[in-house]
Amino acid sequence: VRQYRDGLSPKDPIITLLTDFGLQDEYVGVMKGVIASIVQDARIIDISHGIHRHDIRQAALVLYSAYRFFPKGTIHVAVIDPGVGGHRRILCLKQDSHFFLAPDNGILSLILRNGSMEDLRVVTNDRFFLKPVSHTFHGRDIFAPVSGHLAKGVTMSELGKRLALDEIEVLDVAVPIVSDEAIIGEIISKDRFGNLITNIDHKTYQDFTEKRASQDVVVQLGNASEINGVTTSYDTVEVGAPTALFGSRALLEIAVNQADASAYFGVSVGQAVILKTVRNVGRER
Amino acid sequence: VRQYRDGLSPKDPIITLLTDFGLQDEYVGVMKGVIASIVQDARIIDISHGIHRHDIRQAALVLYSAYRFFPKGTIHVAVIDPGVGGHRRILCLKQDSHFFLAPDNGILSLILRNGSMEDLRVVTNDRFFLKPVSHTFHGRDIFAPVSGHLAKGVTMSELGKRLALDEIEVLDVAVPIVSDEAIIGEIISKDRFGNLITNIDHKTYQDFTEKRASQDVVVQLGNASEINGVTTSYDTVEVGAPTALFGSRALLEIAVNQADASAYFGVSVGQAVILKTVRNVGRER
Amino acid sequence: VRQYRDGLSPKDPIITLLTDFGLQDEYVGVMKGVIASIVQDARIIDISHGIHRHDIRQAALVLYSAYRFFPKGTIHVAVIDPGVGGHRRILCLKQDSHFFLAPDNGILSLILRNGSMEDLRVVTNDRFFLKPVSHTFHGRDIFAPVSGHLAKGVTMSELGKRLALDEIEVLDVAVPIVSDEAIIGEIISKDRFGNLITNIDHKTYQDFTEKRASQDVVVQLGNASEINGVTTSYDTVEVGAPTALFGSRALLEIAVNQADASAYFGVSVGQAVILKTVRNVGRER
Repeated sequence: VRQYRDGLSPKDPIITLLTDFGLQDEYVGVMKGVIASIVQDARIIDISHGIHRHDIRQAALVLYSAYRFFPKGTIHVAVIDPGVGGHRRILCLKQDSHFFLAPDNGILSLILRNGSMEDLRVVTNDRFFLKPVSHTFHGRDIFAPVSGHLAKGVTMSELGKRLALDEIEVLDVAVPIVSDEAIIGEIISKDRFGNLITNIDHKTYQDFTEKRASQDVVVQLGNASEINGVTTSYDTVEVGAPTALFGSRALLEIAVNQADASAYFGVSVGQAVILKTVRNVGRER
Repeated sequence: VRQYRDGLSPKDPIITLLTDFGLQDEYVGVMKGVIASIVQDARIIDISHGIHRHDIRQAALVLYSAYRFFPKGTIHVAVIDPGVGGHRRILCLKQDSHFFLAPDNGILSLILRNGSMEDLRVVTNDRFFLKPVSHTFHGRDIFAPVSGHLAKGVTMSELGKRLALDEIEVLDVAVPIVSDEAIIGEIISKDRFGNLITNIDHKTYQDFTEKRASQDVVVQLGNASEINGVTTSYDTVEVGAPTALFGSRALLEIAVNQADASAYFGVSVGQAVILKTVRNVGRER
Repeated sequence: VRQYRDGLSPKDPIITLLTDFGLQDEYVGVMKGVIASIVQDARIIDISHGIHRHDIRQAALVLYSAYRFFPKGTIHVAVIDPGVGGHRRILCLKQDSHFFLAPDNGILSLILRNGSMEDLRVVTNDRFFLKPVSHTFHGRDIFAPVSGHLAKGVTMSELGKRLALDEIEVLDVAVPIVSDEAIIGEIISKDRFGNLITNIDHKTYQDFTEKRASQDVVVQLGNASEINGVTTSYDTVEVGAPTALFGSRALLEIAVNQADASAYFGVSVGQAVILKTVRNVGRER
């Protein structure tokens, strides 16, 4: 008997889709048609199709932020693929009992950095591809059918040879720099509401502030703008006032209560963010 | 034996989602992942994620216009939630054999005004929440898991204490004013096609015109623009000409045949609309 | 025993939706609610709701490009319907073991031109409609419920009388003109990435080039811009350079590697495209 998805329950396989295809053209619908043609009982859930064109960094952050909220055994398909039709490889990763199909271009970097890989394969077995394979739409011809076959019970070992972690592309994702005085990070994403997401994670923040327990923190955006303290919800400040908080991704966010922080500060992705301590700023007031 | 969703059939529970999250970020996908982790056989249907940010009035109209077209027993989740993380409560309403989960900010006003409430609870039982509960994303941490548990068979009485109708927030939704001469309403929404939806409902219109059976009606937008008569379909006028009709929501709409009424008249939400009678305008021609 | 969807398997009926409704309003969600109220186990897959308002040509191309990637027996519902509420008829087509519901306005033209029709009906039996039928939203009142009933097992003969092909509207879809010297086509669509899709299909191209085997081809956009040769993938040229290739729809596309061809050339739908042969351009270099 074939082991179902490497041992995971066959009930209700879930396939998630993450692309930069947008929803105007038929591309996403076609991928779902291909999957439904292979596996009848899979549930397909969109993570997003609104990734900026070819923005692998944004896709990496979105996929990393989303995947753990799905059941174990979910197959996550990420097609942000500027190199389609060229020499880039296609990867199948198993980690944390989730499966990932993605081009070998760094999309999986954040996931790989924050967990331990269970299996990693290069997808080469064209028995699971839609033929003829076009050179422009591997989402339809490779990613969709391979995810359908995985959902149906094909094992990773059937897809292609094992790869080591040092054989694949890694995204140069900025890690915040921690000095005696400050954490220096940057804005790595902006959401629909204009909230600015930084690369300063909660653990780095905790380690930094624990050692400086008697001090208050200030968050600086560039030279000019300062926010006093780190809070936990938008409405700890007045409507229209800025705040810094650890948001739903466990990353430091700059927000403005009921307004657009990106517009408020006039900054976006790439802007430096400095979190430093000061002696009891809040209490002096 | 636990009564399934207060007595409704367990077959194929449906959960609808209505948010202002947009489709660019992973927020909606994450909510679906949380639901799928709790209840495997629920079907999730999007009503819209394109509500303007924090626009509770638009959300109230959209939810009211949509819910009745779903099967009894459907669980409708509405997360337009400017007060997330603050002191606003979360409500669970049962009415017309439908279930609604929404912040206590008025989103349910139109539904409550047009039917009789069967049960109303404040959602406080954190046994059904995702923990730790963030202060910024209750869609993921409260609304999604509670809807999943409801779909799975949890009863409303398990969610929290009963509330009376006068204990919750009600939206100040404009009701049209009926005088001897006219119905005075306003534009409350604009759809994708530029059709202008007013708050003048079909019943108010019928009562008004029944008493004035020998007279014709004219619809005025502000001072300048007049439309003769109320029709039933866009193409009763030439392509490019304006018309007033009762649309699919049973509310008076101002439309332009195959064009954008908002652009044509240069007006949008908030504009006054006056419907009055005149002596046989049409027949004088 | 009723024959299920004219003999096709009852397992997992799939209904696809293609509209110009957008995703801001509740229209698409309402259609899904109506379908779910009729048939519990149907899977609903969106092809697109971002067709430009009333753009029947774009819809025809998208539907034709998408449908074949779904399983046989799928019911495709296309509601791009400028004539809603007027005298236009509603059609149900069976072709290639797929079912199509669409207004009689030409959306099905490309499908009909490229296959052989199995059955064609005018949908008139209001037993399968939602009542009262509005004059503005047949997507909700006719298309959605009829598709639900089809998925549930209603046969086409129950929907209405048979029509002949010459009784319905046909879109005037430009066919490329083939002369001794050149194929003269035009740009018929532009996708999200700015790729320009022409009406020059692969078969026409093959017939043309086979007879001119010793010659190279050049693709002209208007008078000014020339692209040498037809390739198979975006990255046969440098990043930022233009290329002509047969894309995933088997139609000639003009693309720019990792950029927007429409912006690059400053052209869009309607622009003439000329493919002609030259004596070994490439080799002279």
